[in-house]
Amino acid sequence: METKIDSIKNEVLEKEILCKLNDLTKPQGSLGRLEEFVLQYCLCRSNANASIRKMNMFTFAGDHGITNEGIAPYPKEVTQQMVLNMVAGGAAISVLCKNAGIDYAVVDMGVDVECTVQHNNFINCKVARGTANFHKGPAMSLSQAEQALEAGQKLAHECESDLFGIGEMGIGNSSSASALYSLLLDIDPEKTVGEGTGATGDLLQHKIAIIREAVLLHKKSWDGTGFDALCRVGGFEIAGMIGFIFGAAQKRIPIVVDGFISSAAALVAMEMNPLVQKYLFFSHQSSEKFHRDFLDTLNIRPILNLDMRLGEGTGSALSMQIIAQALNCYNQMATFSSAHVSEAS
Amino acid sequence: METKIDSIKNEVLEKEILCKLNDLTKPQGSLGRLEEFVLQYCLCRSNANASIRKMNMFTFAGDHGITNEGIAPYPKEVTQQMVLNMVAGGAAISVLCKNAGIDYAVVDMGVDVECTVQHNNFINCKVARGTANFHKGPAMSLSQAEQALEAGQKLAHECESDLFGIGEMGIGNSSSASALYSLLLDIDPEKTVGEGTGATGDLLQHKIAIIREAVLLHKKSWDGTGFDALCRVGGFEIAGMIGFIFGAAQKRIPIVVDGFISSAAALVAMEMNPLVQKYLFFSHQSSEKFHRDFLDTLNIRPILNLDMRLGEGTGSALSMQIIAQALNCYNQMATFSSAHVSEAS
Repeated sequence: METKIDSIKNEVLEKEILCKLNDLTKPQGSLGRLEEFVLQYCLCRSNANASIRKMNMFTFAGDHGITNEGIAPYPKEVTQQMVLNMVAGGAAISVLCKNAGIDYAVVDMGVDVECTVQHNNFINCKVARGTANFHKGPAMSLSQAEQALEAGQKLAHECESDLFGIGEMGIGNSSSASALYSLLLDIDPEKTVGEGTGATGDLLQHKIAIIREAVLLHKKSWDGTGFDALCRVGGFEIAGMIGFIFGAAQKRIPIVVDGFISSAAALVAMEMNPLVQKYLFFSHQSSEKFHRDFLDTLNIRPILNLDMRLGEGTGSALSMQIIAQALNCYNQMATFSSAHVSEAS
Repeated sequence: METKIDSIKNEVLEKEILCKLNDLTKPQGSLGRLEEFVLQYCLCRSNANASIRKMNMFTFAGDHGITNEGIAPYPKEVTQQMVLNMVAGGAAISVLCKNAGIDYAVVDMGVDVECTVQHNNFINCKVARGTANFHKGPAMSLSQAEQALEAGQKLAHECESDLFGIGEMGIGNSSSASALYSLLLDIDPEKTVGEGTGATGDLLQHKIAIIREAVLLHKKSWDGTGFDALCRVGGFEIAGMIGFIFGAAQKRIPIVVDGFISSAAALVAMEMNPLVQKYLFFSHQSSEKFHRDFLDTLNIRPILNLDMRLGEGTGSALSMQIIAQALNCYNQMATFSSAHVSEAS
């Protein structure tokens, strides 16, 4: 997959955006981070007059061979059940998108079921029926990883939108995310592994032990790249998100990243090309324990902190509404001169 | 003004709401604080099936005699200019409400201009053309305070809504809010006085000195009540918000409080009747420095922290969207049984 993208840096444009922000009828800087979001958004779009009219959310779904190790409290079948629920409009993410005017679709990257869903909200990009168990060997082959990345990238290339949100569904994928953090950041799974959908007590200890063994297994022969980490311990939905991030950034459309698992996809993407970070909005701090450490490490301040840990894109959806409102203020507020409001002395 | 309200406490209802939350297709508790908002909202409404269909925002405006002391960087005329801007749709709050589907109105509680606005977004409750200078004596008479409280209360009684937001506009009102915090919480103005719309350096020091003198002046004869504090150092728009809070709580409709100045109104209301606190959602942590200390003191965790310090109701509007989405999830998500999704083992 092509990972080349533009830098968003543009000092002339930045001055123009700040100038426009400072002419709006409010004390300078008083919209706080909303102004920061406007600046980042417009720089991404390379347009001082950018606005958000159309928003799109994609939930990437996939199954994980690591569930054979008994690390998740829910049976693997929940992935496919939840995909149907999302498509039918009954999942949290479906409800949030519908009410926020966000176009929504579910992407099957690797759910362990023959694909039978026929719905305009459902996109079939299935690479295989779940990854292999990464406690025993690589989760996916190089060609599978490449296929998943390109499928995600193509989705972004083909979807017309002003703002993208991404999220995921996949029983076992918090294990995959933790393994990616541990491998890429060289941190013991004791720190990176958390509850996921609800692993506590003995189940949590077992999950930590399994991920630790898996990371040790792969560390020996890992080539140090994000791509190889993805092949070894990743998931198809994670690969889909990475590809999507690059596809969107190549079109200069920002991507709102959801929580713990989506951030692991963002980490791999940033490892593949650090320029991608400026196209990402980190929507919220998940209550999954390592997420805060990860965000702190990168000096990223998420938009929301509402103790959510559902995934699907739920944090992204709420943050997209805030980013859209920031741009609404930027484009629709009166200026000091037009509204005949006196400026500060 | 009548300050009697119901307690929202109801253990049977609470169980019913939690039961409904736990049957939704998500791991238990995984929507984090959204679930907390649902619980508080439904308890306020005394209805396990409550939903949010109609939202209303009111910006209360008033002028302040304390501006004669030269404590604000903007001229007093900005209050009336911004009222016109709000009514015309050019202010940040007008833009946010319009795009969030929130019905919006500006309430003139005491702007220092003859009222000439004719607009269905404008409500005239003017008590007087600005408060008196509280550095010299009481800001308002007892009968003026009572009139302002009752006007706010009546507004809430007469407006059909599922969720209220309140905010304010008034050059000089951060001084009034700081004086209220200092008087009611017995804290030196060094801590409670901040930049407001942009008082820095010498202007900030002058502002602190003026508020300190004013608080000392009033402390001697203050009777210790919220009502007397309001009369001494409050503002008409602050009184309007206090009355509105009681009017809404009496109808069991929650109120989303904006930032530093709205929270001062909330503090007075809580002093008048502590039961009112459970009807309030504190929308965001303002970047006005004392706001965080105030919220910490009451053990309140605001919904957002986006470094905003604009007032008008801007933080409320963003948070109302989040609260509405929490209720949308609660009412529109599928249940485990209806969606045929397996539960955790």
